[in-house]
Amino acid sequence: MATTAGTTPGLQPRRTVEELKELRALTGNADGAQRVAWTETWAQARAWMRAKLAHLPVEVTLDEAGNQWATLRGASERALLIGGHIDSVPNGGWLDGCLNLLAGLEVLRRIAGEGTPPVTVRLVDWADEEGARFGRSLFGSSAAAGTLNPDELRDLTDRDGVRLPDALAAHGVDLDRAREAGRQLATAAAYLELHIEQGPVLEDMGLPLGVVLGTFGVERHRITWRGQAAHAGSTPMDKRRDALAGAAKLALEIREIARRTGDGAVCTCGGVVCKPGIVTSVVETAEQLLDQRHLDAQKLAAMLEQAQEASRRFAAEERIEVAWERIWRIEPILFHEHLIALADEAIREACGTSHRLPSGPLHDAAEVARAGVPTVMLFVQSLRGLSHTRLEDTREEHLELAVQALDRLATKTMQWLAQQ
Amino acid sequence: MATTAGTTPGLQPRRTVEELKELRALTGNADGAQRVAWTETWAQARAWMRAKLAHLPVEVTLDEAGNQWATLRGASERALLIGGHIDSVPNGGWLDGCLNLLAGLEVLRRIAGEGTPPVTVRLVDWADEEGARFGRSLFGSSAAAGTLNPDELRDLTDRDGVRLPDALAAHGVDLDRAREAGRQLATAAAYLELHIEQGPVLEDMGLPLGVVLGTFGVERHRITWRGQAAHAGSTPMDKRRDALAGAAKLALEIREIARRTGDGAVCTCGGVVCKPGIVTSVVETAEQLLDQRHLDAQKLAAMLEQAQEASRRFAAEERIEVAWERIWRIEPILFHEHLIALADEAIREACGTSHRLPSGPLHDAAEVARAGVPTVMLFVQSLRGLSHTRLEDTREEHLELAVQALDRLATKTMQWLAQQ
Repeated sequence: MATTAGTTPGLQPRRTVEELKELRALTGNADGAQRVAWTETWAQARAWMRAKLAHLPVEVTLDEAGNQWATLRGASERALLIGGHIDSVPNGGWLDGCLNLLAGLEVLRRIAGEGTPPVTVRLVDWADEEGARFGRSLFGSSAAAGTLNPDELRDLTDRDGVRLPDALAAHGVDLDRAREAGRQLATAAAYLELHIEQGPVLEDMGLPLGVVLGTFGVERHRITWRGQAAHAGSTPMDKRRDALAGAAKLALEIREIARRTGDGAVCTCGGVVCKPGIVTSVVETAEQLLDQRHLDAQKLAAMLEQAQEASRRFAAEERIEVAWERIWRIEPILFHEHLIALADEAIREACGTSHRLPSGPLHDAAEVARAGVPTVMLFVQSLRGLSHTRLEDTREEHLELAVQALDRLATKTMQWLAQQ
Repeated sequence: MATTAGTTPGLQPRRTVEELKELRALTGNADGAQRVAWTETWAQARAWMRAKLAHLPVEVTLDEAGNQWATLRGASERALLIGGHIDSVPNGGWLDGCLNLLAGLEVLRRIAGEGTPPVTVRLVDWADEEGARFGRSLFGSSAAAGTLNPDELRDLTDRDGVRLPDALAAHGVDLDRAREAGRQLATAAAYLELHIEQGPVLEDMGLPLGVVLGTFGVERHRITWRGQAAHAGSTPMDKRRDALAGAAKLALEIREIARRTGDGAVCTCGGVVCKPGIVTSVVETAEQLLDQRHLDAQKLAAMLEQAQEASRRFAAEERIEVAWERIWRIEPILFHEHLIALADEAIREACGTSHRLPSGPLHDAAEVARAGVPTVMLFVQSLRGLSHTRLEDTREEHLELAVQALDRLATKTMQWLAQQ
């Protein structure tokens, strides 16, 4: 294990931990963080952030998608972006999204304190990463990346019946102009994002930090099994056409498919809905949710094919029908090779040992990478893998190491960009 | 195959088919039968039945549980009971319950046409066999049998919030006096009931009629599996504690248990409810419904023990918890051996071949048998095993054979009783 280097002069990682607590006190309650995008609490959090930025020689602007930018002009117009999101899920944790942003703020302070940087440095707070209110995540980053289709969002409503376009308008955002945020990426030369892992891998390995190789591709399907409702008392076992049998077999089979595939493959059956769903009837219809993820597009496609083939086999065995409907898919998004190498160096300098791992959850970084900007992410250990709950936590010494690693990575990336 | 005998003089089985159609026209619609107990349509059906009975030398009375009795006095006070129920489920079939009653009516006509019978003959229309409105089936027969506990029913409400005691009062029934109907069974010497099979066994064997050996014992449980919710993207397969895996394994295992046990054993998982039940999370809690039935009490107990043992094994394999909660149970109820033999004879005389089979569904006959009255049932073939739907059907020639067999069984039973 390499000896770890000290903190860069001017960087105060402890301040990030204190600011995270300050934000929690301001915008959370006993149930957790309440910074749901397009709400008053979210706007309050952003105003708090602007007050922090007011002490720095940066220009703060809002783009057409509601992303909030702080720009420190450098010798070159080419920009290093550091991103995060201050929005949270309801009853969320104290780290998801805002750690990224507040660590970036601390790095921006350190760079600004050294005078004009070689390249422009921009801190971005993406709007509505979580999609907690309208069910559409990565709003601001996908608008900037050009992958957002306003027509697919126009009719979304929240649980109170408020339409998405109206909620956005209340915060100064016109849905039909959101994609104009794409111009913000015109000068982007690299994108860095720190995030809590939201999984158990680093904790199990006893490591504070890891480099993210990319985000998993996802295949998400609804599988409908159709058999025949029949009386639980009067129908002999060999006369049944039980829709639940197909779903049960597949729920077990997908685990074998993931294990056979390996390399971090995950397959999840998140639920089965049975109809009529009463104790006195064989199940006529079972609707099953399936989520499959892999960092390798070919392996992901093979996992899907194996699950579909197995489902046809189970349907034949049970004399029932099976139908697949795609809910959503996204291809794997691989991060930038050289930035991965720089991130590895930065982590080793900060804490001695690095580890490379894929990201199961999506992040704004995936959208930025899709837009062609060289991108990498750092993960910091999550305790018990918990996230999206007030129980989400990370040891404070690890948060401080994360700020140091992000700072070192920013320096290395600026040097790399300046050499180009 | 024995030669089948003709119809008893005076019996008009075709009239039963016509009366079934008449009742369907009066109390059904395009969705099926609508004679739900404690409703106006049900009261209308009973008034129609009373008008039919008005042509016979019988006394029509209502007991404290709302059961409607037609009594043909015989030489002895000891009574042969023939029973059915005119109530139906909503959108029900044209046969379930009312076939029993109208076939009994035809038999009563034939006996009355021959003068005073050796024993008293009573036709009973049990109140609320289906339990469709309040979820408590076999109301009238269990009140008469003494197994009904008013305190368990007092707080039941229908979907409109109407309380069971109020609905009963509107039809002249006082819940707290319902068990006084038990006196109706004081003189009962035998009980006969004809019913559609509601299963596929007789149709598969190509037989019109069968003798019912008894009703299955039932063990009904809710099984709760508890694992850990975890992100579908960030949680490696080997770190998961998936509640659905336990439910899926058990849903498949109960079929093996039933097959191993044999002798008509059935095990059904009617549904699984998953929480949080979303595509992005491993299932934390799975609530599973299990219904197990057998005619042999020891085999039923063994099936339950095997399912419980398997569930503990699956919980250990998956590192999840499992808890069992009994919803309901009833012991197997075996019908009367001599009456079974007489029913076999009656069926062979009516259509050449008989078959003995258990009943999966419960029937009023089970309550009467529990009360110690010698009891037997006849099943007539159901088409496609369908019941509790407007698609429920039986071939008309089989309905006519069923009336003949019930009539022959009534004669044999009266002779047997007269000899005692």
